[in-house]
Amino acid sequence: MIKLLAFDTFGTVTDWHTGVSEVLAEQFPDIDGSRLALDWRRTYAPALAEVESGSRPWTLLDELHREALDRLLRDSYRIVASTRQLDIAVHAWHVIPGWPDAADGIRRLKSQYVVSALSNGNVALLTEMAKLNGFDWDFIGGADVWRHYKPAREVYLGIAELMQVRPDEVLMVATHVTDLAAARSFGLRTAYIERPREWGPEVKDEAPNPLDAFHATGLDDLADQLGC
Amino acid sequence: MIKLLAFDTFGTVTDWHTGVSEVLAEQFPDIDGSRLALDWRRTYAPALAEVESGSRPWTLLDELHREALDRLLRDSYRIVASTRQLDIAVHAWHVIPGWPDAADGIRRLKSQYVVSALSNGNVALLTEMAKLNGFDWDFIGGADVWRHYKPAREVYLGIAELMQVRPDEVLMVATHVTDLAAARSFGLRTAYIERPREWGPEVKDEAPNPLDAFHATGLDDLADQLGC
Repeated sequence: MIKLLAFDTFGTVTDWHTGVSEVLAEQFPDIDGSRLALDWRRTYAPALAEVESGSRPWTLLDELHREALDRLLRDSYRIVASTRQLDIAVHAWHVIPGWPDAADGIRRLKSQYVVSALSNGNVALLTEMAKLNGFDWDFIGGADVWRHYKPAREVYLGIAELMQVRPDEVLMVATHVTDLAAARSFGLRTAYIERPREWGPEVKDEAPNPLDAFHATGLDDLADQLGC
Repeated sequence: MIKLLAFDTFGTVTDWHTGVSEVLAEQFPDIDGSRLALDWRRTYAPALAEVESGSRPWTLLDELHREALDRLLRDSYRIVASTRQLDIAVHAWHVIPGWPDAADGIRRLKSQYVVSALSNGNVALLTEMAKLNGFDWDFIGGADVWRHYKPAREVYLGIAELMQVRPDEVLMVATHVTDLAAARSFGLRTAYIERPREWGPEVKDEAPNPLDAFHATGLDDLADQLGC
């Protein structure tokens, strides 16, 4: 029996490509905002892995984002960004627009389940995102609650422990197969959400796994399937 | 400038005496539910202090509640409670009714501030309480997020760190002078809420401190004073 729904946020409930591209295009009008957003996003997993490997101490996503963009602009675009440009660009991740079905879907699912963000964003970032988009979470599981980044076991088992449920009573909801595979490896159940436009113009190359308990086109579809 | 409102829950937003007395009266019909609730509550601060002193390892409030009630019933009431009776009594703290002004007050305050529970209850308990009462928290700061009990500094400074605000941008909202004094000692601002019926038939013997930034009769009054 599922008691808790844990949601990935970047890509699953929000459209980071649109939100971040627009801000980058405003701040750096001479370059392609979409391409820069995609390049920036590709630095994400390696940066988190560097923290999880122990080769650098716990560092908030905001700081990882800032360092990566600064380096990327210098190395690949020959641009030295100002502090203010970096501030604005890093903040873009706090105010990403939700996918059109997200806020209503979360509200419907909340009527029968505990709904929690479970994200590599930090609590302050996710709180700002939630207030802006009307995401009515019961709890915000930011990475800084555990000081670990997914796919670390501390995050997946941490939310189950905080909510006093068994791992198999948690449904991890995400549009990323790596997130879902990690969740399954720690005993959680999984729901894959299609977000074909997550990477904007780039084709999303992911094959959902038949081990997912649910496969949905959006959070409205997931709510339908769960009878909410 | 205040950015975050952190709320004590037991007594400040919920009426524990009424909720717990009623459940105890049902489970132990031969004794006075109100008196037992008051006796039980008096075991609370010493039990938390035992954890904070380091003389016992981190233990959830549910477990502390259970041990204390079991001992109290044996020693003072000559009753051996069943496991089921203890389960139901411990769970009573999850489903305490809110004070009549609480849910609406939180909703009004949320329109202009980040609103967070900051409680010695654990996250699962506070989530159940919030869903039942319609407390529309932005975040639930349960003691198990930090594995510390108020008045420990880790809790007060922990919520400021998670929300990326300075301590003096946090307003601690409580009906307990000890909670507010601790918050002030760590640089938070404070609001005292009158809850004269917190202890049911017993007179509440607390003198609010002139150092409180606000003194309010309820959360509706606090929302008025904060212009929400």
